[in-house]
Amino acid sequence: MDDKNAMVIFQPSGRRGKVPVGATIMEAAIHLGEEIESLCGGQQVCGKCKVLIETGHFEKFGIESKQEHAGPLQEVESNHLSEEDIAAGFRMACATTIHGDLLVYVPKESRTGKQVVSKAARDLAFDPDPAVKIYTVALSPASLENSAADLERLCQALAEKYQLPEELRIDVYALRSLRECLSRGGDLTVSVWQGQEILRVHRGDPRPHYGLAIDIGTTTLAAYLCDLTTAEVVTTASLMNPQVQFGEDVISRINYHMNYPDGLARMSQTVVDGIHSLIEDALAAASETTGGAVRPNDIEDVAVCGNTLMHHILLQLDPDPLGAVPFQPANHASMNIKARDLGIHVNPSAYVYTLPNEAGFVGGDNVGVILAEEPHQSHETVLIIDIGTNGELILGNKDRMICSTCSCATGPALEGAQIEFGMRAAPGAIERVRVAAGSFEVDFKVVGRHQWRSESQPEEMRTKGICGSGIIDALAELFKAGIVTRSGAYDLKAVSDRLRENPDSEMMEFVLAWADETSIGRDVVITQNDIRQVQLAKAAIYTGCKLMLERMKLEKPDRIKLAGAFGNYIDPKMAAVIGLFPDCPLDHIVSVGNAAGDGCRMALLNCSKRLEADWVARHAEYVELTLVKDFQEHLIEAIHLPHMTDSFSHFDALLPSEPSSARSGKSR
Amino acid sequence: MDDKNAMVIFQPSGRRGKVPVGATIMEAAIHLGEEIESLCGGQQVCGKCKVLIETGHFEKFGIESKQEHAGPLQEVESNHLSEEDIAAGFRMACATTIHGDLLVYVPKESRTGKQVVSKAARDLAFDPDPAVKIYTVALSPASLENSAADLERLCQALAEKYQLPEELRIDVYALRSLRECLSRGGDLTVSVWQGQEILRVHRGDPRPHYGLAIDIGTTTLAAYLCDLTTAEVVTTASLMNPQVQFGEDVISRINYHMNYPDGLARMSQTVVDGIHSLIEDALAAASETTGGAVRPNDIEDVAVCGNTLMHHILLQLDPDPLGAVPFQPANHASMNIKARDLGIHVNPSAYVYTLPNEAGFVGGDNVGVILAEEPHQSHETVLIIDIGTNGELILGNKDRMICSTCSCATGPALEGAQIEFGMRAAPGAIERVRVAAGSFEVDFKVVGRHQWRSESQPEEMRTKGICGSGIIDALAELFKAGIVTRSGAYDLKAVSDRLRENPDSEMMEFVLAWADETSIGRDVVITQNDIRQVQLAKAAIYTGCKLMLERMKLEKPDRIKLAGAFGNYIDPKMAAVIGLFPDCPLDHIVSVGNAAGDGCRMALLNCSKRLEADWVARHAEYVELTLVKDFQEHLIEAIHLPHMTDSFSHFDALLPSEPSSARSGKSR
Repeated sequence: MDDKNAMVIFQPSGRRGKVPVGATIMEAAIHLGEEIESLCGGQQVCGKCKVLIETGHFEKFGIESKQEHAGPLQEVESNHLSEEDIAAGFRMACATTIHGDLLVYVPKESRTGKQVVSKAARDLAFDPDPAVKIYTVALSPASLENSAADLERLCQALAEKYQLPEELRIDVYALRSLRECLSRGGDLTVSVWQGQEILRVHRGDPRPHYGLAIDIGTTTLAAYLCDLTTAEVVTTASLMNPQVQFGEDVISRINYHMNYPDGLARMSQTVVDGIHSLIEDALAAASETTGGAVRPNDIEDVAVCGNTLMHHILLQLDPDPLGAVPFQPANHASMNIKARDLGIHVNPSAYVYTLPNEAGFVGGDNVGVILAEEPHQSHETVLIIDIGTNGELILGNKDRMICSTCSCATGPALEGAQIEFGMRAAPGAIERVRVAAGSFEVDFKVVGRHQWRSESQPEEMRTKGICGSGIIDALAELFKAGIVTRSGAYDLKAVSDRLRENPDSEMMEFVLAWADETSIGRDVVITQNDIRQVQLAKAAIYTGCKLMLERMKLEKPDRIKLAGAFGNYIDPKMAAVIGLFPDCPLDHIVSVGNAAGDGCRMALLNCSKRLEADWVARHAEYVELTLVKDFQEHLIEAIHLPHMTDSFSHFDALLPSEPSSARSGKSR
Repeated sequence: MDDKNAMVIFQPSGRRGKVPVGATIMEAAIHLGEEIESLCGGQQVCGKCKVLIETGHFEKFGIESKQEHAGPLQEVESNHLSEEDIAAGFRMACATTIHGDLLVYVPKESRTGKQVVSKAARDLAFDPDPAVKIYTVALSPASLENSAADLERLCQALAEKYQLPEELRIDVYALRSLRECLSRGGDLTVSVWQGQEILRVHRGDPRPHYGLAIDIGTTTLAAYLCDLTTAEVVTTASLMNPQVQFGEDVISRINYHMNYPDGLARMSQTVVDGIHSLIEDALAAASETTGGAVRPNDIEDVAVCGNTLMHHILLQLDPDPLGAVPFQPANHASMNIKARDLGIHVNPSAYVYTLPNEAGFVGGDNVGVILAEEPHQSHETVLIIDIGTNGELILGNKDRMICSTCSCATGPALEGAQIEFGMRAAPGAIERVRVAAGSFEVDFKVVGRHQWRSESQPEEMRTKGICGSGIIDALAELFKAGIVTRSGAYDLKAVSDRLRENPDSEMMEFVLAWADETSIGRDVVITQNDIRQVQLAKAAIYTGCKLMLERMKLEKPDRIKLAGAFGNYIDPKMAAVIGLFPDCPLDHIVSVGNAAGDGCRMALLNCSKRLEADWVARHAEYVELTLVKDFQEHLIEAIHLPHMTDSFSHFDALLPSEPSSARSGKSR
């Protein structure tokens, strides 16, 4: 914070921004587009705007007190909140003033906006062969004639019916429940891990058996709750990675660890807390779907992918070496760790399988992308661009595979805090933009609304900000319309009341949505600085792709796949206009969604994918781009927007681009 | 407790007895022969008699408050004890009055008696091949050229130098320390479990690597701290099993579990607490021996044996089925459980290996005896009598092996609470007795003193009670001298001032040591009831042996081995006189000490012994003696003492028996 403004982050939406000190949390929510329930309109009488002050400071500032960045508890709050709520840190958003930086959790019952799963699950084609398999057997009671122990009789029965090994291990937690299951007779359901270890035994009505695939992104946590017997996704849940309080990007998290002796433990606990939130959400949704109470105990397997830093933090491994040459991780290989040893509350016998790490920056998430997209099985050379907080690049075919990370944190530069009105692809985010040549009139579409602006009343748009696909659209359209030049600067000769100088920042900006088209009561603009950020990000991605093609001695890839929840929504034509990636026929560019999460899910549900994962981690060659000769020169060259005929030969075919409703048909 | 007397148990000695309510703990200690430091002679001025009130009640009575069975804290205690001590429950023995049953822990610094290891370690002949092996490698720093991860470089080095598999698992706790070890360079020492999993890595000066074999007896815990590189016993430690507060024998512990919902968890925690005491003692002794601080972290492997109930309680497995037909345990097979999952504080990566169970009552302790004595490798048929709290019997040869338990709790009947002056073989315990024919004069020897009574002044004896070998000696000698008849009754015609009727109990008793020969100021006697207890125990053992011989269609065994810390000190001749076991040439009877602990130690230090253990548990046949036809008749027949020429053909050769000093040469 500075003297006058404080940073407020809302969870789980991840909406954030600076607000004046002294404002209430409710005012901040309105300002930042966070929708908090308020039946009384902020009159402090309904008590519906209950929020949790998670951290009354940001850890990186090293302040310990929890509440000091919020004003004192008001009498009206004591009347509306229970003693337990107050003890737990709950406040009324309309009655709580902001004194400093705040992390605010908005509980489900206080949210008005519908939940948005930005990392939805794709249908994947693979044979289910989960690590944890379910077997049913019937056991006759023990007798003096067959007084073999409970476990041995169970193993005998499993061996006879399913040809499992006669001597299975059993987790001591499962062994503890065995007698209770056997004593009442009847059929038993047995969960066996890797054909080696009994994790769970229960009797009678078959309970559900779930596995959880967790994609730990630097910014977003996504979880896929899967049925281990059908291999279907039952529900998904996502959450902003609560570690953002320690810093936006990987470097600032490494720094947090280096600055605070307990930094690693705190970051680890924070992500585990986040995982517990995901589990709670996923189980609540699954309980609704299945009509029965689904409990943490029903989750019998967990697979986790994340970049190498996320992996190290979760496992509490010293991340120092990831920050310096030779960027060496603690381990490459996948691991199977009891969930209880990581403090993750699922079935106590369950394992957490961690996807292997490739190198210091590319980790199990990258392996997940490869598992899902299988470039190593392909005759064609595929370029996969995974745009999350970091841009990760994979280029390969069945003979060779190289991978790398982009030189800048692409996520923040495209939809994060570095963009004035940047936000995740949640309801109210501008996701599509068209700018008319000549008139410079703007049409746009927001997430959660089918009709474009031109088909709606202004007040129906309830715009809140711009997400990544929107900003790429906007820059491409502004460039095509001539408002932005090849250098990325606003063309001051362009005449439009939308293009103006901001009196405070003295910076040029272009209005995408007027205040009356928003729910935040302010014009949503793209600043000159926003454009610079996008240029830096696209230069980093483009340069990375080019250098990797050079490394493989190729002119261009046969196919391009855009991955990442964010990459999924980019319009390839628009990305081509701004030169986000090298030349490639348009119909050879596809979006593949959250491929990392998909790969993680495949590893959860198919054992051979786990073997493949370790093979991939060993065989993918990591290229450290910043060490490539003339890297900086390449990067600087790539900052300009491309010539209309440059670098993307199909450019002409793209004009004019029409508003398309294909996108709005997708469920978000 | 009754109205006037309370039961007091001292730990770790296990000394126990009833004392009048209102006495001080120091008075109780003197009465019961517990030696507590008291420089001022109980004047409440030295503060040396610090003791810990562990439980101010016995759990089986279900009372919760910790201190209510001890009088309130005195001012003098506040002056002598620190605030921390008082908060932890420490009291001055001389200032604390007894209001009810008490479990009192006497800390090392408050003990005057030297420590007695009743379960000393024998030299065993076996090839060391521990489950945890130690390797040393040197690693060069990571570089851009070889940027393999820390773990992979370590595995490479181990594979090259020691031909270990290239892909070892690693415990996540060990992985966490890997970077710290690597970053400072130099040689690394690596502990690998079963050639599969890295448990520990450290650098620089080689630290010691220890394994711990723990024999969990119903009454006694014994631990052997072994050097994993030399396979030598570094130190031993023993302690009364603190579970005795829940009941003396296995049945009363099962009942405690059935009566209290948290009974199992409490008993489990209690034995884990006891194990922690053993570890503390063993590490302190090892630190003295090695001259460096030895820490719990240095214990990298643990092997545990105990009867099936002790096994189930430690692992928190429901023990109900062990108490009823068909006496079925939860599992037979050995297990490897992380120490942290049992709450045992050694190296966090270490495994606890539990020896397998044979049946509902014979567990890993019996398997340990077999591992150590190897009847299954023998052409001769060996009868092993393991006398602990329970008598366990093994009869077998290379073709067949059967085992069983005696029908009564032999330990309590021979040296436990059922004997008026019964005590463990600790300093001051009568261990050898001679009664002159005709004069009925008594000579005896106590543990910890080389000279017999006849060679000493009365006050030098400092007798406290009678241990198991002493009571067998005494009964045999009284029988031979004609004071006790074949039926076990005192012969009222015998004339001796030592034989008298106790006016309170109206029961006959025989004085072994006069008050002036004791440190407790009372005559130490053998009551008629004591003799009945010994008869019951010997009948149970004898009948068990006979029925097992019948089962194998044998007249007599080729050899008899007496095992158990207690069995170790029995004089075979004396045991023969009272008919403790079937006929066998005297020179074919040997004492083998704590064979269960020895076997546990072998399993700790030799992997193939672990395989053998599972084989043994599968192949030993369990015979439930109480279900054998005419069992009760056999038992009743065996209660009489044998004819002088009966059942032990060498009896004549035994007379006269001379005081022997062979025994006193043993270190106890």
